[in-house]
Amino acid sequence: LITLTTDFGSIDPFVGQMKGVILRIHPDAVIVDLTHGIRPQGIREAAIALGDSAGYFPPGTVHVAVVDPGVGSGRRRLALEAGGHLFVGPDNGVFTSVITASPRVRAHHVVAEQLFLESPGRTFDGRDVFAPVAAHLDKGLPLTEVGPEVTDYVLLPLPRPLREGGRIRGEVIHVDAFGNAITNVTAEDLASLGEEQNVRVLAGGAETPLAEYYAQTEGRGPGALINSAGRLEVFLFGARAAEALGLRVGDEVLVVAGEG
Amino acid sequence: LITLTTDFGSIDPFVGQMKGVILRIHPDAVIVDLTHGIRPQGIREAAIALGDSAGYFPPGTVHVAVVDPGVGSGRRRLALEAGGHLFVGPDNGVFTSVITASPRVRAHHVVAEQLFLESPGRTFDGRDVFAPVAAHLDKGLPLTEVGPEVTDYVLLPLPRPLREGGRIRGEVIHVDAFGNAITNVTAEDLASLGEEQNVRVLAGGAETPLAEYYAQTEGRGPGALINSAGRLEVFLFGARAAEALGLRVGDEVLVVAGEG
Amino acid sequence: LITLTTDFGSIDPFVGQMKGVILRIHPDAVIVDLTHGIRPQGIREAAIALGDSAGYFPPGTVHVAVVDPGVGSGRRRLALEAGGHLFVGPDNGVFTSVITASPRVRAHHVVAEQLFLESPGRTFDGRDVFAPVAAHLDKGLPLTEVGPEVTDYVLLPLPRPLREGGRIRGEVIHVDAFGNAITNVTAEDLASLGEEQNVRVLAGGAETPLAEYYAQTEGRGPGALINSAGRLEVFLFGARAAEALGLRVGDEVLVVAGEG
Repeated sequence: LITLTTDFGSIDPFVGQMKGVILRIHPDAVIVDLTHGIRPQGIREAAIALGDSAGYFPPGTVHVAVVDPGVGSGRRRLALEAGGHLFVGPDNGVFTSVITASPRVRAHHVVAEQLFLESPGRTFDGRDVFAPVAAHLDKGLPLTEVGPEVTDYVLLPLPRPLREGGRIRGEVIHVDAFGNAITNVTAEDLASLGEEQNVRVLAGGAETPLAEYYAQTEGRGPGALINSAGRLEVFLFGARAAEALGLRVGDEVLVVAGEG
Repeated sequence: LITLTTDFGSIDPFVGQMKGVILRIHPDAVIVDLTHGIRPQGIREAAIALGDSAGYFPPGTVHVAVVDPGVGSGRRRLALEAGGHLFVGPDNGVFTSVITASPRVRAHHVVAEQLFLESPGRTFDGRDVFAPVAAHLDKGLPLTEVGPEVTDYVLLPLPRPLREGGRIRGEVIHVDAFGNAITNVTAEDLASLGEEQNVRVLAGGAETPLAEYYAQTEGRGPGALINSAGRLEVFLFGARAAEALGLRVGDEVLVVAGEG
Repeated sequence: LITLTTDFGSIDPFVGQMKGVILRIHPDAVIVDLTHGIRPQGIREAAIALGDSAGYFPPGTVHVAVVDPGVGSGRRRLALEAGGHLFVGPDNGVFTSVITASPRVRAHHVVAEQLFLESPGRTFDGRDVFAPVAAHLDKGLPLTEVGPEVTDYVLLPLPRPLREGGRIRGEVIHVDAFGNAITNVTAEDLASLGEEQNVRVLAGGAETPLAEYYAQTEGRGPGALINSAGRLEVFLFGARAAEALGLRVGDEVLVVAGEG
């Protein structure tokens, strides 16, 4: 099983070409698109998508990530094992979430050029390097065969919420397809404030009452809930909360305990 | 074989997570995307897409539909058998077309929580409930094992065309990717008016001559034809009829017999 | 293995229906989406996508192309073998690139109606004709069984760059998801000018220095490089070159040798 996460969108045949390369090497591979809708060069967004998703796949799955503004330059190529899954892609921080969530990580610098495709250009490592390496790993090639182990891989500073006494200062990290504003505040962060029923969530200048499901606040304006990724999410039933509240990635969301 | 129909779009990794869950339970499952481009909360649109499409898949296919504004609330979860196919999703009318087209339906209220995934939130039954239930059904779990049979499932009032003497008053039910305006008037409705050659179709203030294929009216303005779903469709060769004629979902399309 | 290339987009269930038809005939078929993001009626764009991509798939792959404004009219249906791959679709030039790149082509007029699906309309050969024919070919049906051989298939005049002494007059043939402007000038064209280091590329009124990878010109405006399809491509690191330079499909890109 191989998953693909890219910023290639759905217009160009790039993803299809990667699948062709994989199936030529490993005809029995099962390939799943995680998403190709990462914003161009959205490394941080891809890191979060991978961190939220990898665990839902069977152990041993090979996850390929191609969000790669540095393609063709000196930036390294990585293949790594974390949490019982394999990951292949550029060494630019796209694996930050899966690495930091795993107690033990084995990362290798991919230099085994005999695995690569010959190519007229240096702009598409997804097809020419990462796809064939993933196919070989999924077929059973040991991770040690792709190149030497490294430990100085790139980790991005993913924004963590700040705890200030009875307040949590979080931020919007993603706006999903429904216009929900997902924050970096987790269920654990919220629980750390004590009694949930007294928590107030402030987002985009509005107070968004805490709910358990979307329809709970129907007709009563925006709300907030812990979503199925375990994150605090600001929503507006039947509408797009981010637009309605003017919330964008990076905007502050404040959680205040008690009567605050 | 499992198909997926959702309003998740292509930006988020939600669909990918559902596939991971299915493949973890049932590694040999073949998964096909029917569409993830249903408008947010477009239950009616999904009902029509499923009704038009399920029959093209092999008998026994499990169709999962996740257009689910009521997720996490008290709305029921359904698994049902209709027309030799299985369907899994919320009890909100999304299966209206497949149910009404089938002489015999066995519907069960999905309550077998041991099949569900544990989740930090209640916002993603697609991943936490419907995907695992579909995987188990595709693997052979009898429908009776998911919960008790029910007969009071939700059916939506899908708009039917009105027959008024020699006229049919239909409406636009979908605008497709090419800008064609699909109506709820069927080939049978049209045939019921008698001689087809004398039928006039009025849509968006224009008379759209009846054709058999798009290129037939090239350079001569909009036309209408019976499409491959058996529905009357208003088109404009090489252009977007809906925009050109100002047609939107719900707008009237009139079919008049004879010299009208 | 069967690939699909269409202009169906991701809103409608058309692609899903084609997959259902294929899997009903050939349950073991592996189906890969090449792209469904071809612009409506973009035959030329599909021809280029197929030409760039088919070779990355295993020999014997069946490639289905459905960009088909003439569907339902008298335009022919083709199945052909070129370069060790099979192709199925309308005879409108969509196979121009794969045909012209292949020394030997066997093309057949698809008339074996017993392979087709019955349909209420004539608007969806993708589902009713090309999908079942592709499924049967992938299952082993000889090409000769679909209909008589033909040699007068449609070829589109794909724009070739003009060589004028020390200059190459090319044009933009595609703008990709990143806003890169892909031209019809190839690495071979460029090499024919002699020493690459002295080549100047002029696009959208700007001189775009030749680079080897995107990040090479970071902070220094647009550049040009030979991409992984072997084509000259105008880019702007971290931004959309086509928008920044006002480049559209058909616009001229000039390559000048020496001091020019």
